[in-house]
Amino acid sequence: MNREKSAIGVDLGGTKIELALVNNAGKIKKTLRRSTDAKGGSNAVQRQIVDAVRLLRQEDDQNIAGVGLGVAEQVVQDTGLVRFAPNLEWHDVALQTDLSETLGMPVKVVNDVRAATLGEWLFGAGRGCDDLICLFVGTGVGGGIVSGARMLSGTSNTAGEVGHITVDLHGPICTCGNQGCLEALAGGWAISRKARRAAATHPEAGAALIKMADHRIDAITAEIVARAYNAKDSLARRIIDGACEALIGGVVSMISMCNPNRIIMGGGVIEGLPELIGRVKQGVRLRALTAALESLQIVPAALGKEAGVIGAAALVLRESEGQ
Amino acid sequence: MNREKSAIGVDLGGTKIELALVNNAGKIKKTLRRSTDAKGGSNAVQRQIVDAVRLLRQEDDQNIAGVGLGVAEQVVQDTGLVRFAPNLEWHDVALQTDLSETLGMPVKVVNDVRAATLGEWLFGAGRGCDDLICLFVGTGVGGGIVSGARMLSGTSNTAGEVGHITVDLHGPICTCGNQGCLEALAGGWAISRKARRAAATHPEAGAALIKMADHRIDAITAEIVARAYNAKDSLARRIIDGACEALIGGVVSMISMCNPNRIIMGGGVIEGLPELIGRVKQGVRLRALTAALESLQIVPAALGKEAGVIGAAALVLRESEGQ
Repeated sequence: MNREKSAIGVDLGGTKIELALVNNAGKIKKTLRRSTDAKGGSNAVQRQIVDAVRLLRQEDDQNIAGVGLGVAEQVVQDTGLVRFAPNLEWHDVALQTDLSETLGMPVKVVNDVRAATLGEWLFGAGRGCDDLICLFVGTGVGGGIVSGARMLSGTSNTAGEVGHITVDLHGPICTCGNQGCLEALAGGWAISRKARRAAATHPEAGAALIKMADHRIDAITAEIVARAYNAKDSLARRIIDGACEALIGGVVSMISMCNPNRIIMGGGVIEGLPELIGRVKQGVRLRALTAALESLQIVPAALGKEAGVIGAAALVLRESEGQ
Repeated sequence: MNREKSAIGVDLGGTKIELALVNNAGKIKKTLRRSTDAKGGSNAVQRQIVDAVRLLRQEDDQNIAGVGLGVAEQVVQDTGLVRFAPNLEWHDVALQTDLSETLGMPVKVVNDVRAATLGEWLFGAGRGCDDLICLFVGTGVGGGIVSGARMLSGTSNTAGEVGHITVDLHGPICTCGNQGCLEALAGGWAISRKARRAAATHPEAGAALIKMADHRIDAITAEIVARAYNAKDSLARRIIDGACEALIGGVVSMISMCNPNRIIMGGGVIEGLPELIGRVKQGVRLRALTAALESLQIVPAALGKEAGVIGAAALVLRESEGQ
């Protein structure tokens, strides 16, 4: 008799949909990927999800507890209503109810970064830890907070927006409209914005970056800046130093607020520049409250891009087990 | 038969000890105050507390559940060990165990600002709210976080140190050693530091402040700056504007991290400048994430200086009721 429970985790992005069949030990048993039919609108995308889920269900239909789905931006807790997903141009899509009715099984929709935090907490770098913060530094900066063995959701399900803490009152404008957000200083888009502006103003200092971008300044990406940093280019060094300083300030704020036992750093920018973790550790030792430092570890994320599907599936598995 | 339960709340400070007999509706029935015998060391202070508690017990001995005691600085949860209380120059004082043995009743020692947060939450401006942050701006800046109807303690009981979030990476040095902490820009000590420095460098601009401090620059306090601000002195305006900007940045960070339903602002600086609450509200509307703003209220604290004793007593009453 097979007592192993599974769930299907879905990571719904603007360009692709990742699906995985995940067991209750957090192991991925099968994956699927689709290009998001964003132009088709929410009906088309829901059909894609339903078709893909049905394919995965054939693998292990008896033991699948349901579907967990992570999506960028705001999700209303409990109802799983997607209020606004800018990369899909969706407003008020009843994704959870619709999918659940069509599939005839439990569906749980959550914010994608909170799903990834759940994945790292239960099956990744946060295993066994009751107080942690995940800090994902990719194109944007997001995360999640676990405090006293519970994920914080806040009053309208937007807790954990660690990219939008103010670290520099007079810093650069953020996409959210505020100034000096952590994301506006350390997110991938901010790194490339800073590099492009610097290269345009000082083409000599930006020579290496411009060359690596095939002589198109507007093709300089955070990834290129990271490569130039690793090759010791001095403009890239300056830009990444600034991002690192902002990360230190942001992590210090997180520590002062939540006194976590572990801070887990992941995302594309960190994966491209893993030494940032060591630099943040060092900076935080100098800047954070002594009492909060004694019990603090700063560690790399363990699940990479799979954290999202694993966490989304885990959410459904936990609910099915009444946790 | 009197079924009303009470507890004794104690607020132990470096200069005075406030005690109150508090019932389980959060009402103060009797108060006592002692000047702290700080020079006598922890034994002398404990004797003071024991004597005062015994006096209060005579009021209602049958129904007193125990003693809750708030003290500045770090307290080890559960054991109530005071690790370090700089204003008393105490290190590793087993206050909870000692007092409990001497008094023969339950004693619970907590951080004083967390006690005040509990008071505001249960009986003050936070009544009925499951997600709130208290922000007390006095000489220092402190607070507490309630999320999902639970007070956050963190992994070593220092969560809620909202005065030490970084709001300005390149800002002034804080007493904690970091730069640009909220407290180093908006705390009473920071306001007076800034005013003294400005008055010393520009005596003309500082004329009003200097006069209000009886012509002694080093006697300029945050209270004097607040009075000068209310009298429209332009240097005082500039200084308070800076503090207000920092408060806005700090509150935005708190909102992004925890998505509270209510932010409760109190403490001496706020009491002296109540219009700061309106200014923070306005600034936050422009700077915080829209999704988190919809459900947000920013309100003044309701219990004033009594929040601490009420909260400390409430802690014991809750435990006695098994909450």
